[in-house]
Amino acid sequence: MTSLAFSKGHGTQNDFVLLADVDAELDLTADLVRALADRRAGLGGDGVIRVVPTSAVPEGTAILAADPTARWFMDYRNADGSIAQMCGNGVRVFAAFLEHLGLADLSDGAPLAIGTRAGVRHVRREEVGYYAVGMGTWRLPGGTEAVELGADALVRTAGIADERPALSLDMGNPHTVVALADAAELAAADLTAAPVVTPVPPEGTNVEYVVALEADASVGHARMRVHERGVGETRSCGTGACAAAVAVRTWAGAGAPSTWFVDVPGGTVRVRLADDGTTELAGPARLVAHGTVDPAALVG
Amino acid sequence: MTSLAFSKGHGTQNDFVLLADVDAELDLTADLVRALADRRAGLGGDGVIRVVPTSAVPEGTAILAADPTARWFMDYRNADGSIAQMCGNGVRVFAAFLEHLGLADLSDGAPLAIGTRAGVRHVRREEVGYYAVGMGTWRLPGGTEAVELGADALVRTAGIADERPALSLDMGNPHTVVALADAAELAAADLTAAPVVTPVPPEGTNVEYVVALEADASVGHARMRVHERGVGETRSCGTGACAAAVAVRTWAGAGAPSTWFVDVPGGTVRVRLADDGTTELAGPARLVAHGTVDPAALVG
Repeated sequence: MTSLAFSKGHGTQNDFVLLADVDAELDLTADLVRALADRRAGLGGDGVIRVVPTSAVPEGTAILAADPTARWFMDYRNADGSIAQMCGNGVRVFAAFLEHLGLADLSDGAPLAIGTRAGVRHVRREEVGYYAVGMGTWRLPGGTEAVELGADALVRTAGIADERPALSLDMGNPHTVVALADAAELAAADLTAAPVVTPVPPEGTNVEYVVALEADASVGHARMRVHERGVGETRSCGTGACAAAVAVRTWAGAGAPSTWFVDVPGGTVRVRLADDGTTELAGPARLVAHGTVDPAALVG
Repeated sequence: MTSLAFSKGHGTQNDFVLLADVDAELDLTADLVRALADRRAGLGGDGVIRVVPTSAVPEGTAILAADPTARWFMDYRNADGSIAQMCGNGVRVFAAFLEHLGLADLSDGAPLAIGTRAGVRHVRREEVGYYAVGMGTWRLPGGTEAVELGADALVRTAGIADERPALSLDMGNPHTVVALADAAELAAADLTAAPVVTPVPPEGTNVEYVVALEADASVGHARMRVHERGVGETRSCGTGACAAAVAVRTWAGAGAPSTWFVDVPGGTVRVRLADDGTTELAGPARLVAHGTVDPAALVG
């Protein structure tokens, strides 16, 4: 393989190697993904995102039947080479990359349909470098009783005294949200080890630790840290921020804001919770560098 | 600042962002170094290496007086923005970068003089992508008695039973080399916490854990892990590999080989110990990617 054009970008420090494959010619093997995402021997990233025509991927038929305008598909791979459904921060960076490539024009603020393995997602640009994306519908695996009690699980965490009550949420992937008392307690949590969740989630869970910050009648504000299932603590997690917003609004009770700014270690995202149960995630996307990588230099 | 050309490269997974500043026009601030070296919001690297004319740096007068052919200076910065004297793996990557830029031709195998903050270093290419560099003279801070006893310090390490005897070496920076029984013990060492060295080295020390592998009359072979002072465990440490070779040769006694291959987590380097007390470090250097980075996109 000759040299490969790439860009490097991130959304709230969830970072990606971006590849344009507009003619669907690239054989993006798991080995190549791992090599590109390697932070020392490669370019480094939480994942690799390939732009490919929706019509060229197996998932494309169903996606284009649902929305024929979803011309480009976000082929997202985790750094370990595995395939992922979706990535909330990744979609924003994908949109910025489409604009950089001249494959889309989001300057009018209208939503652009994008194909993903989780179906069609719509992204719109609010300003240069700031995008909002529909994240689908959340639900409570424990039923509405969990909301009335505010919790349906217990989480034990290094650095935090006692087990803490937590709320389970399904954002397409599983989340368990723990409310902590204040920013000091949030900072004290040791997320180098996986939190212990009871009852044990059958497929594991992402665990979000949340503190509600100063109140406002119209816009909420929370701070979050996250331990991602199978990964460890990360700088940002899009679905995690959405889960955190759902949980803090639930705990805040009737009249709580439906828009929340959520501070994560890598920046701040905005979550909007609609009455129909859908969520929208907004935040920055930044392309940092562009260049060419020599795949042969990545191996061995 | 407009966009900045960069390359990304590594030597045994000690990785660097490389900048060509042939006209000495770049204001490489500590902030810019940190932003470039940031593994999520930037390009990522253990350090940033700038190619600049030796005549353009304060150290240049003394370097050029010692060797007028040392035309290019390796301005090495740690990822935290601080200035470093030298980096054994970095010199190889610097040489590969000079070749990539067309600023040097090492194809004849003759040594090229390079300016560094530790003085003039000579690097030669043995084959494409494989370089050898003179690393200067080692010495025993504890005097020759330490060599006769084979140890002058004790090191306590998580995951390793008991304190272990160790040999202190000065390679321009301080090293403490510990011999372990076998590869299993080496793998069991927990280097997430700093080893405890007795007596306490006044300026700290790098600690190398070494196991001698199968013996050979002419060429030694050892495996090493390293805890770098102020950094933690790394994939490779050039001066550490040299210190490890000195120690294992010392322990092997009279007739031991003067050439050692040292396996580090990021690959294998070769160390040659000359009778005059100088060492030479050889190993791979690989340029992985080339491109442009937008400094404005790195900030905030």
